[in-house]
Amino acid sequence: MKLTVNADLLKEREKCTFDVEELTNFLDGGATQTLNRRKLENFFLSDPRLKDEVPMEYLSHKERYEHAVRKSCILFQKVNEWQQSDESTSSSMEIYKSLLGGSIGSAIIKDGTPFSVHYVMFIPTIMGQGTLEQQGYWVGRAFSNQIIGTYAQTELGHGTFIRGLETTCTYDPAAEEFILNSPTLTSYKWWPGGLGHTCNYAVVMAQLYTKGECFGIHPFIVQLRDEETWNPMPGIKIGEIGSKLGMNSTNNGYLAFDKVRIPRMNMLMKNAQVLKDGTYKKSVNDKLTYGTMIFVRVVIVRDLVCSYVSKAAIIATRYSCVRRQSELKPGAGESQILDYQTQQYKIFPAIALSLAYKFAAMWLWDTYNEVTSQLDLGNLGKLPELHAMACCLKAVSTADAAVAVTKCRLACGGHGYMNCSNFPNMYAMTSATETYEGENTVLLLQTARFLFKSCHDAKCNLILTETVSYLNTFKSSRRKTWNTNLECMNNAFTQVAGSKIENCYFTINQLVNSGMSQEDAWNENTIKLTQATEAHCRAFVINTFITTLKTVKLSAELMKVLTELCKLICCHWIINQLGDFLQYSNLKSNDVPSVQSLLEECLRCIRPNAVGLVDSFDVRDEILASALGVYDGNVYERLIEDANKSPLNQDPVNISFYKYLKPFLKSNL
Amino acid sequence: MKLTVNADLLKEREKCTFDVEELTNFLDGGATQTLNRRKLENFFLSDPRLKDEVPMEYLSHKERYEHAVRKSCILFQKVNEWQQSDESTSSSMEIYKSLLGGSIGSAIIKDGTPFSVHYVMFIPTIMGQGTLEQQGYWVGRAFSNQIIGTYAQTELGHGTFIRGLETTCTYDPAAEEFILNSPTLTSYKWWPGGLGHTCNYAVVMAQLYTKGECFGIHPFIVQLRDEETWNPMPGIKIGEIGSKLGMNSTNNGYLAFDKVRIPRMNMLMKNAQVLKDGTYKKSVNDKLTYGTMIFVRVVIVRDLVCSYVSKAAIIATRYSCVRRQSELKPGAGESQILDYQTQQYKIFPAIALSLAYKFAAMWLWDTYNEVTSQLDLGNLGKLPELHAMACCLKAVSTADAAVAVTKCRLACGGHGYMNCSNFPNMYAMTSATETYEGENTVLLLQTARFLFKSCHDAKCNLILTETVSYLNTFKSSRRKTWNTNLECMNNAFTQVAGSKIENCYFTINQLVNSGMSQEDAWNENTIKLTQATEAHCRAFVINTFITTLKTVKLSAELMKVLTELCKLICCHWIINQLGDFLQYSNLKSNDVPSVQSLLEECLRCIRPNAVGLVDSFDVRDEILASALGVYDGNVYERLIEDANKSPLNQDPVNISFYKYLKPFLKSNL
Repeated sequence: MKLTVNADLLKEREKCTFDVEELTNFLDGGATQTLNRRKLENFFLSDPRLKDEVPMEYLSHKERYEHAVRKSCILFQKVNEWQQSDESTSSSMEIYKSLLGGSIGSAIIKDGTPFSVHYVMFIPTIMGQGTLEQQGYWVGRAFSNQIIGTYAQTELGHGTFIRGLETTCTYDPAAEEFILNSPTLTSYKWWPGGLGHTCNYAVVMAQLYTKGECFGIHPFIVQLRDEETWNPMPGIKIGEIGSKLGMNSTNNGYLAFDKVRIPRMNMLMKNAQVLKDGTYKKSVNDKLTYGTMIFVRVVIVRDLVCSYVSKAAIIATRYSCVRRQSELKPGAGESQILDYQTQQYKIFPAIALSLAYKFAAMWLWDTYNEVTSQLDLGNLGKLPELHAMACCLKAVSTADAAVAVTKCRLACGGHGYMNCSNFPNMYAMTSATETYEGENTVLLLQTARFLFKSCHDAKCNLILTETVSYLNTFKSSRRKTWNTNLECMNNAFTQVAGSKIENCYFTINQLVNSGMSQEDAWNENTIKLTQATEAHCRAFVINTFITTLKTVKLSAELMKVLTELCKLICCHWIINQLGDFLQYSNLKSNDVPSVQSLLEECLRCIRPNAVGLVDSFDVRDEILASALGVYDGNVYERLIEDANKSPLNQDPVNISFYKYLKPFLKSNL
Repeated sequence: MKLTVNADLLKEREKCTFDVEELTNFLDGGATQTLNRRKLENFFLSDPRLKDEVPMEYLSHKERYEHAVRKSCILFQKVNEWQQSDESTSSSMEIYKSLLGGSIGSAIIKDGTPFSVHYVMFIPTIMGQGTLEQQGYWVGRAFSNQIIGTYAQTELGHGTFIRGLETTCTYDPAAEEFILNSPTLTSYKWWPGGLGHTCNYAVVMAQLYTKGECFGIHPFIVQLRDEETWNPMPGIKIGEIGSKLGMNSTNNGYLAFDKVRIPRMNMLMKNAQVLKDGTYKKSVNDKLTYGTMIFVRVVIVRDLVCSYVSKAAIIATRYSCVRRQSELKPGAGESQILDYQTQQYKIFPAIALSLAYKFAAMWLWDTYNEVTSQLDLGNLGKLPELHAMACCLKAVSTADAAVAVTKCRLACGGHGYMNCSNFPNMYAMTSATETYEGENTVLLLQTARFLFKSCHDAKCNLILTETVSYLNTFKSSRRKTWNTNLECMNNAFTQVAGSKIENCYFTINQLVNSGMSQEDAWNENTIKLTQATEAHCRAFVINTFITTLKTVKLSAELMKVLTELCKLICCHWIINQLGDFLQYSNLKSNDVPSVQSLLEECLRCIRPNAVGLVDSFDVRDEILASALGVYDGNVYERLIEDANKSPLNQDPVNISFYKYLKPFLKSNL
């Protein structure tokens, strides 16, 4: 293996006009955080037990799972070691973020760990919905990995519509026990991560029956497997749901109950309670259970979307500097493919996107923490806005991420189709986020309800919250002459969002006034409602990007580059939804060439800094896990090295020749 | 397994307003063709040797390959049996289309057969570029499978730019032999299907050197492996390139030569020749070698795009009728998800798309045959137009297909992410077509050159060929008032395409007139050029759909449904590129609601016939290979049945518990 850095990449790095480390530190939240992150990465990524001899793509489904369990056990054992070491400077939150998001963990178990739901949902649910006593009993055992749990809500026939879940949990006051039952095939629990063979406990969501009455969905802790033998407990049927597009070592499982009894105290009773005699005591506030759900959506935007879009951009950018193909001018020699305008247009928006969603995620995370602390004081005022923004940001960012990863893959031509590029796995991980934890269309329509209500409030001259305040003001900038300053483009996004929301509001009210039911009127406008919500989300992301640029203190050189990226994403999104901007904003038909020119100008300006930008994302080769994206640019050497890891390449002649091919060839003589 | 048909699907089939068999026959090209197709499917799909006990997704990479070889040998042995049987009514072309396109073959070897390049490229290249003597010698052996060949053009460092290939083939007049050599790592042949371990011959494209001069790329037949031992021939290094997003049993390989000698007569000499003494005789016409390349692109549109989009639409439509989720009205019970407008908008365009590209592919296929027969007479006149349409249709249709398959997958929620839905595999097969046989952006820019030239011809008042004749006429309909008739929308598509092409033409000429080189001016406008080409392609597809409706003889009931689908695709594409239509067509801002309303109206009209439409595609369950798409709609039963095929589910406790999990749990006590 060559150890020198590819000459083209060296030249790219010399051209960079800003301090790469300055941007790295800014993205990490400070130089100390960069240092801590790198220490943490060193600790986990230097362990030889966590490296694969044969890449997981060559293994059977079963082997992949077994390796994932082996490595997960080492990984989470090391968490304790790290926390007890002198070097330990990262918070637990940082460690779990690295191990379960798109960074360290994804380098070690590309296909997902079967333990993730234990940390991301099992423990948080007990903490959020258990009494203090229940938390004391279960959380300690869970955090020290004496038990491994999952969260079982979705059923084979039921996902989005939680009220439709069929699993029942009936209280038997004589025994002071609950009886769990799966009355139908469609009531089988289906999807929980780790449920197949890895977990021995679960929080199970089921329809609570007591004293002959149904009180709806409640959470129960259920033991699934014997702690000694690991056999399923009596009355429990359990297995994995089978192979998937990706995440094949997360061991998603199914689960059915045949009259399984659990103690009364296994109902999580922080909110609602069932007393010994079977009396049901209602929850004080239903909204308190939103916590975990919102948390997971926030984490998807912050840790998965940003991480996978960054990685895709790094790989495609570096590869496009090393790859030379065709001649821009006859006889001039083959060009770096990053010099083609069409190639820049596939890749640079991904660089900008990863920053845009990073800033949006920071807002979301801060707001989440603020709202959560307010919740504990009983103040629910900001919850609807947080919920609305978490829904639409999760939906729009995951859809954009899947497209960005795909575009970057396609920008790498055939080599991007190889698993050793890491694109196929990154796509599988990214696209999964479009569906899990709230299907995207469903989430957009949840935000639409908030926007509809906010629009109504605006008409009633009520005060609007931060993210929808433009509903009161967006029309004022409509008459201004167009220019391509950030302020003008920012206003145009709110004009589009405001108009689209208002149009839906008027249309639906008109239908209702003409005699249609509210539900029918809503349902006949859901395409437009999802599009209005998307416009709202994009306006928020653009505004947050611009606001961030206004408030941070960075060098002039870096600020210039970040501003170019911000302009790029503005132009890109305007051109993508040009019809909206022509209809609803102050952009006129003869202004369009100025937007297209700015777009092309941004691509040209970003070109010399492209490698510097992706270098600043500071993703180690182990985490990139891509032959095409390696820091030293020795792409072709890596490709052949990776090919030779294929078990098929260990023998010059495959056994199928003797068994099938030779008889076949001879039979035709 | 329940044998009754799901009640919701039964009701859907009762609602259908047209004769499903009539549409099936129309799509097959007649009732006889339907009958023949079904017979052929029966013959291949009823063979128990071709069924999998364990789905291929659970196997290791190596096992998948070995199964693929086994099944391929049986499959192509059966071709002979079929051809000799009484029932044999299909042409060879039909059989190979079924085995290598998206139908019968995809049911038996989902992941692709390693023999496909043998039939699709090795044999056609010898037929197209070999002398009669060479054809006589090689094609017979190849067709009777005494040898298995591949086509080796692409190299590790070279794809699009064929002139940049590095493999050399130097003539040695003393020995009357050529010497093949791979001078660098980047010159390794890379990607040819079947090359890894399956083929023993290849057509190798290499730089021809004779008498000290290089004459560019020429084709040579090279023996790769010994026919008896299957060991690589001396001087030949060979292996597979490793695992990929999909097509993991096609055995794509790499190949390097260390001064490998082949007889002079192994150069395919129909066009250029090297005489015994090393004299080079030039080809009469270079364009004659375009044949295979265009053929493959035509076949991609006809056999892969249409087939995979249809399958995706069938699966998503049937599943959405069986799946019930949420309530359209509170208390009304859960609705079939196909009743949601947003769901219809994800799926129905795929139904329309599969027809739209079917009709475009029919034009392409007819034109290909016409042009080929003209070529044999030395008439090259229609070749540029065929080449241009094959390029842009391949590019736009494959990109649309990948998006359509993805949308249909996402429309099936989490279950669409399961491999047993068949979506992941269908996506992998579809998305591969975006890159292979001409990278899509490169192809769009090839068509752009034709359009640019045609635009120039229009300005010079020259007569334009069929597909670009609108460049002379598109402006005339611009002043007409908008309506949503097909004719008006059809015109609008040509207005958009014509304007975008003309804009590029003017911009580039302006830059050239102001002193920029032609190449630089072209390169600075490639984003706009690809978009103009896409607009041209869509205008062609819409026009072909409308023309087809005008010329076919079908019942009024069927015609009504097909017209709704045609209108749907028009509205859908207009809304998607609304900015273009507002800028360049007679659509005005206040006409937009009429297009949106028609779109929603089309969705409503298609809804009751959706199942009938996808049933008419007449894709057998074995070919659909989807738990979600089964004809009888017993979706949930299939999902659990498929899960239980997982080898992980054969033991209640996985071995990783004893080896890793138990020690880990205990260590934390």
